[in-house]
Order: sequence, then structure tokens, then C-alpha cells
Amino acid sequence: MHTDVATRPPFRHALRVYWEDTDAGGVVFYANYLKFFERARTEWLRALGVSQQALRDETGAIFIVSQTHVRYLRPARLDDLLSVTVALRESGRASMSLSQQAFRGAELLAEGDIRIGCVDAGSFRPRRIPDSLLERIE
Amino acid sequence: MHTDVATRPPFRHALRVYWEDTDAGGVVFYANYLKFFERARTEWLRALGVSQQALRDETGAIFIVSQTHVRYLRPARLDDLLSVTVALRESGRASMSLSQQAFRGAELLAEGDIRIGCVDAGSFRPRRIPDSLLERIE
Amino acid sequence: MHTDVATRPPFRHALRVYWEDTDAGGVVFYANYLKFFERARTEWLRALGVSQQALRDETGAIFIVSQTHVRYLRPARLDDLLSVTVALRESGRASMSLSQQAFRGAELLAEGDIRIGCVDAGSFRPRRIPDSLLERIE
Amino acid sequence: MHTDVATRPPFRHALRVYWEDTDAGGVVFYANYLKFFERARTEWLRALGVSQQALRDETGAIFIVSQTHVRYLRPARLDDLLSVTVALRESGRASMSLSQQAFRGAELLAEGDIRIGCVDAGSFRPRRIPDSLLERIE
Repeated sequence: MHTDVATRPPFRHALRVYWEDTDAGGVVFYANYLKFFERARTEWLRALGVSQQALRDETGAIFIVSQTHVRYLRPARLDDLLSVTVALRESGRASMSLSQQAFRGAELLAEGDIRIGCVDAGSFRPRRIPDSLLERIE
Repeated sequence: MHTDVATRPPFRHALRVYWEDTDAGGVVFYANYLKFFERARTEWLRALGVSQQALRDETGAIFIVSQTHVRYLRPARLDDLLSVTVALRESGRASMSLSQQAFRGAELLAEGDIRIGCVDAGSFRPRRIPDSLLERIE
Repeated sequence: MHTDVATRPPFRHALRVYWEDTDAGGVVFYANYLKFFERARTEWLRALGVSQQALRDETGAIFIVSQTHVRYLRPARLDDLLSVTVALRESGRASMSLSQQAFRGAELLAEGDIRIGCVDAGSFRPRRIPDSLLERIE
Repeated sequence: MHTDVATRPPFRHALRVYWEDTDAGGVVFYANYLKFFERARTEWLRALGVSQQALRDETGAIFIVSQTHVRYLRPARLDDLLSVTVALRESGRASMSLSQQAFRGAELLAEGDIRIGCVDAGSFRPRRIPDSLLERIE
């Protein structure tokens, strides 16, 4: 039986807000949500059995971010515990699109669409996502 | 006579890429373009006679980023000298939209659309951009 | 009966190395160990029942770092799982000194002596560490 | 004739404090002084005709930071213009020690002793600082 991508519950990664994440507005510096989203993507890949360092060492491939679209809805503060989701929207031969959200409890704080490409670590030229990886992701 | 916003040459801010800006891919970490764009916006405001710290101390208003959309085209590396532009696309009573680009020489490396809102520093509730500031921006 | 500070096993906090932590040398950017040390201190305080945000809201006190001395011994890399320790060396009325280490497994990667002061969040003037907090720390 | 190292005026690099540099205490996050110190060291090397990217491409050597000792005296705030100094204290075959200070006008905000080593970019093993570079530094 086939499980449709859209119906799977998204992957969730919990993280804490520290001093390093905040700015003089007293809240999380907006650029840092890109870091939070990336930590969640890394843990999502790890949960699928993919280590990015091993991927690079074994195949020479790395993932790069080619596009980010983020909407900031409510501020997070020091000591907040956030939950960051990852859901695959679309995957092609050399790239994929992910939908991500950051929550504090049930409150949605920020959400983003992140586009990622697979490239050669030396030349930064696009290359196919390894099949074994694509199978796990999909 | 009226000068149309779109016909003005954009503001430019020069910056250097340091170790702190790079990641293990050997290039600038993509989230850091949001920092580069913000430095350029800050210098653009300063060139217009606006200090954000003074604005806050005098009026209680701060600018927050409500939406970012960034496309990453080519990687920047350690020691690169970048030029980051700021062009106003649209301004309303409590928010504005800016178009920004990062260049290395004539090469476009990244570009973004950044939406900014004016809020009260204490409550984070939207408030009107002070008129004196709006006049300078437009 | 009195438990000597030095004989307690140090507090330990686990953390993962992400892309954001690395630099173009392919390893963790040295300044980021200060962030890792701080995350561990924050979790150490939390384990003692102290939330820094609550401390500030209730008493107006915040902790600031007044001195850091860090030795970098071996590089950490992407995907490494680190364990960061916190041990109290000395505590006074308005400050304390902590000894911290970052390990990957049994390998010591970095170690630091961090001096922290308690100040008023508004004026940054030194103030006594609240007694209830001192009791928990010691 | 011999110019004694200690009698030369230190190199100075000017930089501005942006939102990215601050934390929820309303001041510059202490770890960021390590970034400020490094920007100044990079510009000091550049002023001596040394590009670190070129050094790596041509010789395979990179500089790594092996020890940092920083004292934080007064906080810097958003929009502050800082001046960061670099003075060589000591240089050996594979390492050097630098004394650095961050000022706002005449006010000393932070000062540090930074120890740097020259290593092979691939193996991270210590290697001699290229002679041509040592001559320029001294």
C-alpha cells in the first residue's frame, strides 16, 4: 500500500532558545530560524539513516540551500522550548522542497519553504541525489 | 518634480567575507546573507539620517523583519569583497518592502525580498512608521 | 554533612554539531565553543531549577560573562556529538567562576574558564546573586 | 636599524555594531568580540599583503586559533562604532601571540590575548609559518 507524502505527520525536532539566539529586541534574531530549520532537517535526515558528513566522505555530495522563504509570525524568547517540523513537499533528481514550521506549544512562530540542491562538494555543480537517499526520503 | 522610486540607483554597502561567515562547505553560510542584507539596510537608514538606536530611545519604535525571500545563486568565499544593495519597493504606514542583492564585482551571488514592519519595542504591536522617517525613505 | 564542590561529578550537556557551527576550515569555528559552553551553563542552571528569563522577570538580575579563557585542543566536525561539562570552581557574592570542557567521546576538544557576574538588567551594575540561587548552585 | 615590536602603534580596524551582534541583554553578545578581533587580525594581515585564501591556495597553510583569553569591561550597543586593535606580542616558527583591544572612542570595552598556530589545512598538523609572511609580520 502506498503512503501519500502529504498525509504523513511531519518530522519534529525540539530545541531550546539560548542567549546566542536572541538580539537586542529581546527576541530570537530572525536569521536564526534558518539555523533552527536546518537543525531539524539534519535530524530528519539522521532519523532516515543519513549522515551528511558520511554522505560527503563517501560520495562527494553535499546539500546546499538554493532558496528560502520565511514568514515570521510571533517572536520567541530566551528559554523557550521550540518544536520545528520538516515535511517534504516535492523531490526531483537533484533538488527537493521542504515545508518547515517552528512552534512554541501550539503557537506557530515562523514557517518557511526551503529549497535544497545536491551538488558536488568540490565544484558546486548540481548532481543527482543518490538513489538510496531518495528512496529513504520519499 | 517627482523622482520615481524605481529609477533611483540603489544604495550600496561594501563588506568583506571573514572566517565567521563561512561554513564547512568552504563558502558563506546561506543564513548569513540575511545578516549582510541587514547591515546594508542599517547603513541605508544611517545614510538617510536615521539611527535605529536613537529611533528606539526617542520614539519606542523598532523595525522587525516579517518576511524574507532569498535566492542563492553563486557561493561567496573567504576574503571576497561584496557589495550589497538596498532598493525600496513599496512602503505603507507600518511596513515596507525592500529588494536587495549581493554582488562580487558584477556577479550576482544572492538576492532577496525583505518585508519589514514598525512595532512598539515593548509590546511588538504594529505602529505607524514615524512621518519624518517615511519622508526620508521615500 | 558537607559535600565538597570539587568532588561532585560535573554537569554534562550533550549537543550536536550542525552546519551553522562550522567554518571554511571544515571544523567548528572556535568562537562557537563559547556558545556551547553557555548552552551547558544554561542547562546546568535549569537543572538546578533556575530559568534565566524568570530570574530577570522576577528580580531584574541577569548574568553577564566578564572573562573567558579557552584552549582549543582538537577540532570538532559536522555531525559530531559533543558532551560539554560545567563545574563550579568558586562563587562569591556577585560573581562565580566555572570550569568547562567539551568532549567527543573520551577526547577532550576544548576547555575553558568562564567568569560570570550578576548585574542589574537595566544599569549593568553589579548586584548580589539572589541567595536562593546561590544555595542551589553551591 | 631595528624597530622594536612593542613601540609600534597597533593596527586599527573600525567596525559597526549591527543587530546580528547583539543579544537580549541589549548589548553585544560577548562571544562576538572573538569575531571582531578576528576581523581586525584579517585586515591586519591584508594590510601586510597577506590574503588567507591565497595563502591556503598557494601553500596549503591556514591559521587556527589555539587559545583565547578575553576580558569584557563595558558593554557595546547597537549602532556603536568600534575600533579594534592588533599588536603582535610574540612570534615563533609555527605560532604567534597577539594582543587585541576593542574601543568605543577612548573607552576600552574588551581586551584579549589570542594565540594562533599555523597548520596544514588538510591534516591540521602544525607547520612553519612561511618565511615571507613572518618577515612581513615582524
